[in-house]
Amino acid sequence: MDIKNSVIAIARNAQAASRQLSRVSSTAKNTALLQMAEELLKNADRILAENARDVSLAKKSAALSKAMLERLTLSKKTITGMAQGMREVAALPDPTGKVTSMWRRPNGLLVGRMRIPLGVIGIIYESRPNVTADAAALCLKSGNAVILRGGSEAINSNLAICTILQNVLRKNALPEAAIQVIPITDREAVREMLQLEEYIDLIIPRGGEELIRAVVAESKIPVIKHYKGVCHIFVDAGADMEMAVNICCNAKAQRPGVCNALETLLVHKDIARKFLPLAAAALKKANVILKGCPQTRKLLKNIAAATEEDWYAEYLDLVLAVRIVDGIDEAIAHIEKYGSLHTEAIITKDYAHAQRFLNEVNSSTVLVNASTRFSDGFELGLGAEIGISTTKLHAYGPMGLEELTTAKFIIYGNGQVRT
Amino acid sequence: MDIKNSVIAIARNAQAASRQLSRVSSTAKNTALLQMAEELLKNADRILAENARDVSLAKKSAALSKAMLERLTLSKKTITGMAQGMREVAALPDPTGKVTSMWRRPNGLLVGRMRIPLGVIGIIYESRPNVTADAAALCLKSGNAVILRGGSEAINSNLAICTILQNVLRKNALPEAAIQVIPITDREAVREMLQLEEYIDLIIPRGGEELIRAVVAESKIPVIKHYKGVCHIFVDAGADMEMAVNICCNAKAQRPGVCNALETLLVHKDIARKFLPLAAAALKKANVILKGCPQTRKLLKNIAAATEEDWYAEYLDLVLAVRIVDGIDEAIAHIEKYGSLHTEAIITKDYAHAQRFLNEVNSSTVLVNASTRFSDGFELGLGAEIGISTTKLHAYGPMGLEELTTAKFIIYGNGQVRT
Repeated sequence: MDIKNSVIAIARNAQAASRQLSRVSSTAKNTALLQMAEELLKNADRILAENARDVSLAKKSAALSKAMLERLTLSKKTITGMAQGMREVAALPDPTGKVTSMWRRPNGLLVGRMRIPLGVIGIIYESRPNVTADAAALCLKSGNAVILRGGSEAINSNLAICTILQNVLRKNALPEAAIQVIPITDREAVREMLQLEEYIDLIIPRGGEELIRAVVAESKIPVIKHYKGVCHIFVDAGADMEMAVNICCNAKAQRPGVCNALETLLVHKDIARKFLPLAAAALKKANVILKGCPQTRKLLKNIAAATEEDWYAEYLDLVLAVRIVDGIDEAIAHIEKYGSLHTEAIITKDYAHAQRFLNEVNSSTVLVNASTRFSDGFELGLGAEIGISTTKLHAYGPMGLEELTTAKFIIYGNGQVRT
Repeated sequence: MDIKNSVIAIARNAQAASRQLSRVSSTAKNTALLQMAEELLKNADRILAENARDVSLAKKSAALSKAMLERLTLSKKTITGMAQGMREVAALPDPTGKVTSMWRRPNGLLVGRMRIPLGVIGIIYESRPNVTADAAALCLKSGNAVILRGGSEAINSNLAICTILQNVLRKNALPEAAIQVIPITDREAVREMLQLEEYIDLIIPRGGEELIRAVVAESKIPVIKHYKGVCHIFVDAGADMEMAVNICCNAKAQRPGVCNALETLLVHKDIARKFLPLAAAALKKANVILKGCPQTRKLLKNIAAATEEDWYAEYLDLVLAVRIVDGIDEAIAHIEKYGSLHTEAIITKDYAHAQRFLNEVNSSTVLVNASTRFSDGFELGLGAEIGISTTKLHAYGPMGLEELTTAKFIIYGNGQVRT
């Protein structure tokens, strides 16, 4: 079979599986998830052996950066984490079947909205083989079939994990095609997959901006994604100085390589002279390199100048751009111009400013007096996270299980016709 | 300016307008909507004159079908309808600013979700100039800027309506670019528009399947759409015969040219002998032509055979395909295979069958004992309708004002950092 027909066959089987899956009870899905956790642990050596093959091939070809090689490499600990993740998903409430509201029309029709699975979800990702297990768990729990398309560098690891999960599905009389890894490493397979709007309901790409832009450009299927996270903190005049320093350090340095890390710090001109030296000292301890606007550089000698590109930059590194602004209006205008609709925070004691920031900044997550690092499905209480969206359609911000469902209208009548 | 740059300028202005608009009070938006209603009526002659130009050009070129010519033609009555629509939208509740839920995290963070406008909405439509006013009203009310791209055949009518609405915006110190009609009739303008994901948040195409497929294939921006409505009614064994006949006639014949009209009737084999002659007689009175499966043709002589294509057909006409099935399983399987995820109904007295149909059929609207014609934003109590979606992302089924918004996370903290 050629690539096109192989991918179509996978997608067709996924659709058939998703229809079966939408009728499976929560109990049956949870039983399977708990068994999957056990089987991942039991077969850890097999997964690690396949992963070692991937890692050794990647090292030979030298195509992967050190960071990507690190993400590719599994250990007993990451496999234990995968199993633990399965158990946690099993313990979450099932988002399907929930009737969110119901109302009666003047003609007596009772109209409600019931949450149902999306159907078939395609995940396109790079290097990390643990995404295979994590995404499979979330899709299964929400009643969706999943088609996983990892990077060619992780193919042996991904197939090993998938086989273990499929064995559990089979033993539980659940459709095996509910979890599939595309075994074709040719890029053509992705291109074919992105055309299959008849079978696949949603594409979630996880990886670098380049990967995501390529997926959006080619896909006929809706894509949920964020290109980047250029997150801001605005330190207002009169902010609690210690709180502001603490939050800025946490947002920038606790894990600088993630999308909700701080990238640009905006400081009110009336607090800059006092706040910036304190913040700079704390950030320096955390090895953060600062780049500043001309006014910032008057207060902090020896830091580099921030250029226009810096305001757009997602460093994903221990680098922070700093700008002094006239007040909340200029801060909001800066975020509107340079932001990525991801996550922004204000540090303030001013009630009106807190409310204005929450109301007027339309990024997907907006915080008062807290670190941008909280923009995360687990931290916000969604119980899980399948991704973060900065596209306003369907889901905006961190996505949990509920975002893997949609709502249909259900209507109880007793003979009504339209006049 | 070339086409590309003209379209970019329009989209940029729309985005700037949308940011202003998201901060405008409901009162200000409603005031503008009521004035727009008045101005449409006051300027009816001007609109009709421009419309007459469009109609006369269309007649000369003979490129439009009779039905499209009919849709293109405005009258005093349609303009009164447009004005009335504006007033009705003004009276609806504002969907923005609503905080749908709020919860406290163990670390004290208070997390909520607030509904906000999508931003900029692009509407691509054919012939009907009243869509210009209707869509503009819904977008304005929900705080969105709108870019309207009607058919070239309606360009003078659309521009006339748009100018009237923009005058009201200007008088109310609202951004004029909140409502824009693309003045370029070249198809290139649509292609350019569909690339501008940086400025436009959502595309809603309204028109024939061909138009919609072309939009989906080219768009980088999320598209909400339905290709077609192949709606089914399943008449169960033991259904109330009079109710079933009544509902089938209403669903098929009350307005056959719309997407929620009945296209395929599925009849339980145990009721077919009694029900089909009654239904056929009533449908014949309504001038409906039947096509049947072999078993149906044994009971109803003189009707044509339904071919495989008939089960996929959206007739949009007084034609109905009829099939006898073994029971609810075969009915659901038929709908899964041939359906379009639009609207399906069961007519039954059986409690378990009613619940199974509601739970297992995952079309966007599923009814028990009521006509498929109720799948409509107004009829379901949404207050308005901007379109119907059979794509499961964001909105599924009829879309009202709320579907023109998204939800951002708002978070109240008091110094929390992530550990």
